[in-house]
Amino acid sequence: MTAAVDRRTDLMRALGGLAGDIVIDDPGIVAAYRRDESRFTEAGMPFAVLTPRSTDEVAACLRACHELRVPVVTRGAGSGLSGGANAVSDGVVLSLHRMNAILAIDPVERLAVAQPGVVTGELRAAVAAQGLLYPPDPGSVAFCTLGGNVATGAGGMCCVKYGVTGDFVEALEVVLADGRVLRTGTRTVKGVAGYDLTGLLVGSEGTLGVITEITVRLVPAPGPAATLVASFADLAAAGSAVAAITAAGVSCSAVEILDRTTLRAVDAHAKMGLGEAAAMLLEARRLALPALERLGDWLLDDVCVPRAEVVALIEAVERVAAETGLTIGVFGHAGDGNLHPPIIFDRGDADSVAAATAAFDAVTAAALALGGTITGEHGVGRLKATWLTRELDPVNASIQRELRRTFDPRAILNPGVVL
Amino acid sequence: MTAAVDRRTDLMRALGGLAGDIVIDDPGIVAAYRRDESRFTEAGMPFAVLTPRSTDEVAACLRACHELRVPVVTRGAGSGLSGGANAVSDGVVLSLHRMNAILAIDPVERLAVAQPGVVTGELRAAVAAQGLLYPPDPGSVAFCTLGGNVATGAGGMCCVKYGVTGDFVEALEVVLADGRVLRTGTRTVKGVAGYDLTGLLVGSEGTLGVITEITVRLVPAPGPAATLVASFADLAAAGSAVAAITAAGVSCSAVEILDRTTLRAVDAHAKMGLGEAAAMLLEARRLALPALERLGDWLLDDVCVPRAEVVALIEAVERVAAETGLTIGVFGHAGDGNLHPPIIFDRGDADSVAAATAAFDAVTAAALALGGTITGEHGVGRLKATWLTRELDPVNASIQRELRRTFDPRAILNPGVVL
Repeated sequence: MTAAVDRRTDLMRALGGLAGDIVIDDPGIVAAYRRDESRFTEAGMPFAVLTPRSTDEVAACLRACHELRVPVVTRGAGSGLSGGANAVSDGVVLSLHRMNAILAIDPVERLAVAQPGVVTGELRAAVAAQGLLYPPDPGSVAFCTLGGNVATGAGGMCCVKYGVTGDFVEALEVVLADGRVLRTGTRTVKGVAGYDLTGLLVGSEGTLGVITEITVRLVPAPGPAATLVASFADLAAAGSAVAAITAAGVSCSAVEILDRTTLRAVDAHAKMGLGEAAAMLLEARRLALPALERLGDWLLDDVCVPRAEVVALIEAVERVAAETGLTIGVFGHAGDGNLHPPIIFDRGDADSVAAATAAFDAVTAAALALGGTITGEHGVGRLKATWLTRELDPVNASIQRELRRTFDPRAILNPGVVL
Repeated sequence: MTAAVDRRTDLMRALGGLAGDIVIDDPGIVAAYRRDESRFTEAGMPFAVLTPRSTDEVAACLRACHELRVPVVTRGAGSGLSGGANAVSDGVVLSLHRMNAILAIDPVERLAVAQPGVVTGELRAAVAAQGLLYPPDPGSVAFCTLGGNVATGAGGMCCVKYGVTGDFVEALEVVLADGRVLRTGTRTVKGVAGYDLTGLLVGSEGTLGVITEITVRLVPAPGPAATLVASFADLAAAGSAVAAITAAGVSCSAVEILDRTTLRAVDAHAKMGLGEAAAMLLEARRLALPALERLGDWLLDDVCVPRAEVVALIEAVERVAAETGLTIGVFGHAGDGNLHPPIIFDRGDADSVAAATAAFDAVTAAALALGGTITGEHGVGRLKATWLTRELDPVNASIQRELRRTFDPRAILNPGVVL
């Protein structure tokens, strides 16, 4: 406790006149910044939350933390599902919610420039007003932030046509661990001058630097969409339909799947009468997680397999559900091979918790065995840090560790996350 | 000379039984591997060309060179325009022309797997036979290799719609400087497990490792294209039309520009009667460089500016031509803001060479001043290594140097290129 008080005092001193404006240390408020929306992930108790308003203030925060070797966990909206924004004890949480300005929308270059705390849905609305589309649309689009999307390499429903967040990031401003400010990328459509640091920083989950400004590429707003809903006798048949759509070369904006468990939960939750009102499908898809929440506690997976293996993955999920006796829904971005099986369990029951853990591991292992990846879009975070070395070969893991050390030699950025 | 002989002897010993099969040291043949298609770039005399047939043999080559600290310049077809494949004295050229197999084409996952020495046009033809398209189409598509395209982050005519080479690279196998084999990426559509090493290696110009296998994403083959040709009274009017097309949100596969100088050179070269036969436009565009070659020696630039600045860039090129008294053509990928002004000069005339150098510098400086980049798609190579630190801020350049050291601590890979 004394150590924590000392840390706080040292940090306030290092921040100088800035401290009063940006440091929150009310324990009740600090506790609200402890963790993201993930389950089964550790979260420490930070001794302060830092709330900078500008790149200069972020740089001052990082210089101070670097000097004092204080761990820094950067946070957007806290909507992540892998523990990537969970706090570390004796560390600080750096929240970017005050840096929430859209700085520019340029219809000629089709670019937008925004601060990391901008809510993704608000950016989408602002560019839509100018006839443009920012395609990435994570399920949490109404409350997640652009900075978090970039940090995790977030996906969404329309990735199957448009691609993921990283495909739209043109340039970044990033504060490095020691407080230096790095600018990456260009405002041009093409550019190959030097290594692609922009791409390296996308999906780096707060371990290589703090993103303070983001330039994204926009596309012309498409015409009205047509939606087709089909129901199938079983999940395997639905999976086969996805494979057939892909093989036929049909370019859909989204190819989503919801199983009976998920649909019933949504219907019970939202009273949509889903059997009749197909226009509500996308809304139903977005309600999948809150609806499943009513069934019990949930643990959400985020595996991605080659498209042809979607059926095999669904079958594996059903097998795991039967073996563990748990309800496991199936929903996700079927067109990408990216599924989010939610495992429903009772956190008050130790057996149920153990079964949920076993089911989670079994689904992740099944995806790897099918030539897939442990995370399609949620990130590694804390939830899958031990899994990452099962996916990456030792040479890859070793290079990743060395890269991380190059950016953050004192290992203050999001320790315990990713690797 | 004795040092070179010693190096050769040491290398042959380190390669053991492999040496006879893969080492070329006939001086006449070696000389043919000295340089790429760039102008005004230095090239040393390598003491051998290594021609491995497999990843294992590449690894053996790099282990030997790493042990002996022999510089290694990796080479595809040698069609580069920035000196990135120019040899280094007392070093070796590692040519990947024997690794030219297409290993797999998977229509369901829409992926192809190929070795680096595959000619890009041959890959495009092979996937087209299965109703698929590999979109990147550098001007040199008929003879350049996929490995070179990935190493330089090559572009092409249809980037304005489809994106550049890097947008299609899903996974890589890479031999590191010390001979370790690194696998990056996934076969899945999405994946965020760890840092994006694939993206970091794309465009790294042989400085981070040797690419030995490439997995690329394919798209369904599009229907027949419609081509529109328009002529304008001056270049500025043409540039304005490009800006208007972009602003209107029209999605063209290619938006190319050729000025009067280039068109006349092509017509004189190919006797196409271009005024009438618009269907030959794309062929004319591909013939621009060989045609301009007939006017004299050429030095080709590769600048890219924000789309709205294309007119300003064209005006700058015309101003530079007037000031230096040289013929400078204008052609390039106008829809991307990526122009390749060829500077025509006489290499036998010292004044003309000096004027060409000054013109090249002036055009590159003009692009930077317009918020552009020094290289849209050809790479930094040796040609623009001194320019890179004018584009990148010091923090960015410092991080790039540290990353390079992480991958290649003995600095044997393509020394003098990029940074």
